Amino acid sequence: RAEVVRTRMIPYQWEALNDRVPGAAPSYAVENLRIAVGEKSGKHRGFIFQDSDLYKWLEAVGYSLATHPDAELERTADELIDLLARVQQPDGYLNSYYTIMEPDKRWTNLRDNHELYCAGHLIEAAVAYYEGTGKRTLLDIACRFVDHIASVFGPEPTQKKGYPGHQEIELALVRLYRITQDPKHLELAEFFIDERGKTPHYFQLEAEKRGETHPYWYKWGFEYSQSHLPVREQDTAVGHAVRAMYMYCAMVDIARETNDQELFQVCKRLWDNVVTKRMYITGGLGSQEFGEGFSTDYDLPNDTAYTETCAAVGLVFWAHRMLQVEPDRQYADIMERALYNGVLSGMSLSGDKFFYVNPLQVWSHLTERRHDHHHVRPSRQDWFGCACCPPNIARLLTSIGQYGYSVGEDSLYVHLFIESTLNVKLQGVKVKISQTTKYPFDGKVTFTVEPEKAQHFNLFIRIPSWCQNPQVSVAGKSLEKLDAVQGYIQLSRTWHPGDQVELVLSMSIERVRANPLVRENMGKVALQRGPLVYCLEEEDCGPNLPAVFLPREAELTVEDDPVLKMPVIVGEGLRQENNTDRLYFTDIPKKVPVPIKAVPYFAWNNRRPGEMLVWINEKE
Amino acid sequence: RAEVVRTRMIPYQWEALNDRVPGAAPSYAVENLRIAVGEKSGKHRGFIFQDSDLYKWLEAVGYSLATHPDAELERTADELIDLLARVQQPDGYLNSYYTIMEPDKRWTNLRDNHELYCAGHLIEAAVAYYEGTGKRTLLDIACRFVDHIASVFGPEPTQKKGYPGHQEIELALVRLYRITQDPKHLELAEFFIDERGKTPHYFQLEAEKRGETHPYWYKWGFEYSQSHLPVREQDTAVGHAVRAMYMYCAMVDIARETNDQELFQVCKRLWDNVVTKRMYITGGLGSQEFGEGFSTDYDLPNDTAYTETCAAVGLVFWAHRMLQVEPDRQYADIMERALYNGVLSGMSLSGDKFFYVNPLQVWSHLTERRHDHHHVRPSRQDWFGCACCPPNIARLLTSIGQYGYSVGEDSLYVHLFIESTLNVKLQGVKVKISQTTKYPFDGKVTFTVEPEKAQHFNLFIRIPSWCQNPQVSVAGKSLEKLDAVQGYIQLSRTWHPGDQVELVLSMSIERVRANPLVRENMGKVALQRGPLVYCLEEEDCGPNLPAVFLPREAELTVEDDPVLKMPVIVGEGLRQENNTDRLYFTDIPKKVPVPIKAVPYFAWNNRRPGEMLVWINEKE
Repeated sequence: RAEVVRTRMIPYQWEALNDRVPGAAPSYAVENLRIAVGEKSGKHRGFIFQDSDLYKWLEAVGYSLATHPDAELERTADELIDLLARVQQPDGYLNSYYTIMEPDKRWTNLRDNHELYCAGHLIEAAVAYYEGTGKRTLLDIACRFVDHIASVFGPEPTQKKGYPGHQEIELALVRLYRITQDPKHLELAEFFIDERGKTPHYFQLEAEKRGETHPYWYKWGFEYSQSHLPVREQDTAVGHAVRAMYMYCAMVDIARETNDQELFQVCKRLWDNVVTKRMYITGGLGSQEFGEGFSTDYDLPNDTAYTETCAAVGLVFWAHRMLQVEPDRQYADIMERALYNGVLSGMSLSGDKFFYVNPLQVWSHLTERRHDHHHVRPSRQDWFGCACCPPNIARLLTSIGQYGYSVGEDSLYVHLFIESTLNVKLQGVKVKISQTTKYPFDGKVTFTVEPEKAQHFNLFIRIPSWCQNPQVSVAGKSLEKLDAVQGYIQLSRTWHPGDQVELVLSMSIERVRANPLVRENMGKVALQRGPLVYCLEEEDCGPNLPAVFLPREAELTVEDDPVLKMPVIVGEGLRQENNTDRLYFTDIPKKVPVPIKAVPYFAWNNRRPGEMLVWINEKE
Repeated sequence: RAEVVRTRMIPYQWEALNDRVPGAAPSYAVENLRIAVGEKSGKHRGFIFQDSDLYKWLEAVGYSLATHPDAELERTADELIDLLARVQQPDGYLNSYYTIMEPDKRWTNLRDNHELYCAGHLIEAAVAYYEGTGKRTLLDIACRFVDHIASVFGPEPTQKKGYPGHQEIELALVRLYRITQDPKHLELAEFFIDERGKTPHYFQLEAEKRGETHPYWYKWGFEYSQSHLPVREQDTAVGHAVRAMYMYCAMVDIARETNDQELFQVCKRLWDNVVTKRMYITGGLGSQEFGEGFSTDYDLPNDTAYTETCAAVGLVFWAHRMLQVEPDRQYADIMERALYNGVLSGMSLSGDKFFYVNPLQVWSHLTERRHDHHHVRPSRQDWFGCACCPPNIARLLTSIGQYGYSVGEDSLYVHLFIESTLNVKLQGVKVKISQTTKYPFDGKVTFTVEPEKAQHFNLFIRIPSWCQNPQVSVAGKSLEKLDAVQGYIQLSRTWHPGDQVELVLSMSIERVRANPLVRENMGKVALQRGPLVYCLEEEDCGPNLPAVFLPREAELTVEDDPVLKMPVIVGEGLRQENNTDRLYFTDIPKKVPVPIKAVPYFAWNNRRPGEMLVWINEKE
């Protein structure tokens, strides 16, 4: 998938951002910059946050160049960066919408207008591009903009006490701080986090200044942007799911940098709420289209789910950050769940079609006829007017190596099983570690450890919670007893060049059930194998998938699918016969045996479009 | 229920229409009339169709006075009628909104502004009040208005070719014609029906004349008002469900009056579509809030259902009309289903609280947190800003006798089993027929036939399709073989004063299943006994009703409920244990025996508010 992103998705997205994909929704993102510098005339088009799509693309390019140098791609990126340098105003301000359309209205509507959000993505791109190429141009642009922002916002009486309507800059500022070590960068992030939700409410004051008289559109008011309460008083995940994820990320980052235990406890409280009450089995977040957000505990409808790709990406970001503070597999398990299911489902196998929303049940014929399904698309799209998701997948997958490992002074943690090579220093000694695996399709993982000289250090390897019988052998010797710390087996030894660790994570087919308070899933099971959630597709099982029942005793086996080129689950199920024209009747309906086949959720809709179903009716 | 309407609901609604119910949404309906005649100053308030609430109330009063003379109520009604006479303009026009607000804009927006709809309700009120009291004042007002309408609309080149955005006047004009025998009244109804859906589209031309440039708000365009096609070309029920019902009623009426077989075939086609693919088991219609209407075949979600009370009332109207053309129990069965379930659920047992929407599953804690449930109220309301439903129940139940019987030259059809006395003439002989019954709670019905002298005629009595073993005895003699014609047993004999017919309709508890294409109901059963659909309530079965399973073999019995004072269904079910904090798990959940109790759907939410569920998970 990462390779598809590098070879197909990054070039494709560049075409999309330049409005050169026939039939796709236009982006206007590059065009807006050209208008801003006067090379073209016209108005800003697209969303007010259109710049951020460019930044996320640049961020992905930065990651990609770090591992796969590409002179032509780098030249393209440098040209875009030069253009951005010219869009930047003398005082450091940078935003194509305001520069073109309302230069005198800067910072007058933080609630809705995404200036700080775009700035955040600029910063993240700058950090990634600097780390990937060593070039400072974009980093300098970002720092100048941050200097400007830090002059406008802050605790001084002359400064605005605002914070972004869509969180993002907070986490970006911490990333910037980690490069610059400039305390101002960290302080600004803390300021934004701590101002949030104070009363009198900044967004309210700001709205009054604008002369707004109508109430805020969103039914639950400031919950939408998690500004209903000071963040330290929050204990339930509410509102827009992506905003929530980005905010929680920043909270962990700040807690970590400032050793703020109180703030980290808030993060843990919110984490528990999300993963035990408000998360789909795919790691998808956001139960409803309205507000693109959370609704209430255990409310996880499958067909009208919003489950925006960006929210699953955000959950990966958050889990990864929690893991850096507490190496505990509960975070890595969720990170992996979101990654392999809710995130990957957002892109086609070919890398050039995208889902914005990822429900767990798609009734393709309804998307046109039921208004409460109108956000659901029966097939992945070429591009979106609001194209936040595709570049989010791109930046995550191009930097996926950062999520696989954590490196300490004398310890290396392996969180994800991905074929990869890692070069690190442990106890001052260079160590190269290679992973060879077909995971997640197969549970065998081989690590080859190559320190430049024999060296003692701790290798912690996650045993995923779905795995009942892990087997580990080190240097050819099978371990009898697995000594696990928070779900990680600890291998503490002196490592010699060429030492191998063999890990076999048995991947049985699991029937997963949901908490009985998830009403929609009562009497249903989802199939999971390893970290992959499976689903039924009309292509394999015919239409009307809710009529397919999985007997509790049915034997399920794994086989390779020649078209999808990955393991699928097959077995014999039952299908309720449909031999009546009557709408209601009292006869007992017959169920007849039918072959069933389940494919990985992330791979659905890569053949003919049709129905899809994750939670299957169970026959006891 | 009819008695509650007469004694409680009619007086209560008069208070509501006069804005005298503390805490209830104001109506402004009477106030608007006072403003229109200059007795008060101010603007028209409430919906543009607010007058129609008054008309529907007057119609109900007309029916009520026919069977229960009430001098005070009649005086109140007469005063309102006098006020309406003064609101009527010299040219016959009558509409408080246009008279107060836009007197020069009459008939410029038929699509949205309900002038013809209100006129229709005025006509229906006039007919009912004339029939109930013999007084012509309101009838004359209506006829003058119709004269005016007939001058504005019609086939002549100078006349408008429009038709109502909300159907209603068409069926009203046929009712008026049956009183007046004025062919102009029938012709105008035919004109409205036959113009509908022609191209170029009248609503489009009209919108252009108004200078409207934006497209019509409704996603599926003219389907909303069933004007997407000429009515004779329609074969699926689409759009706003109440509009559809009123139109289908008029189509049957016109087909009957003009012996138009083609038009009746269209009605039968639409009937089949509705009752075999688009109707809830309660007789509720309208699968979605958006457009308050139909979506597509077999799309019958239980929780987000719109199922407006008015639509179920409309289905009763339509079924009743189909029955007058073809005495076939398929129509009466549906009429009864809608009446005892989808209609009666719209009012509280006390008669002064109302549901506008009637879903089949209410998750009370979701109505506030899920936007796609925001139309669902956890409890019946005192009144509504748009208060179409309460007066619709009132006018149906006050005239329920008209739905119970059909009378021919030498035949009497009994469609409904309701304690009642009927006085008719058959073959020129006065016949009094009394029904004694506790139906629908008990299946025993006794008819006492009292012709003024011995007379031969046919008595047709419906055997509901849910009844497997009907027993009939005539004058004490049990019938061995029941000779049924289209579901009606035919008793052809010479009737003597005092002859009794005893009917016993065995009411077993039925587990009803839905067509497997109704995805939400897969693996579920609904309980029905006689014509009553039952449901579970949190009050009896605790919260999280989807965790309750009904074993296929569970024995269910009927007992009287001391609070609801009606038969309820009790038995032993199973409840899936909830002993985990985990959101997803692989253990097989336990089910433990629990007593279950189901109450008639129409009677739900008359105790403490809470969850409700019609379709129960079945354990095979």
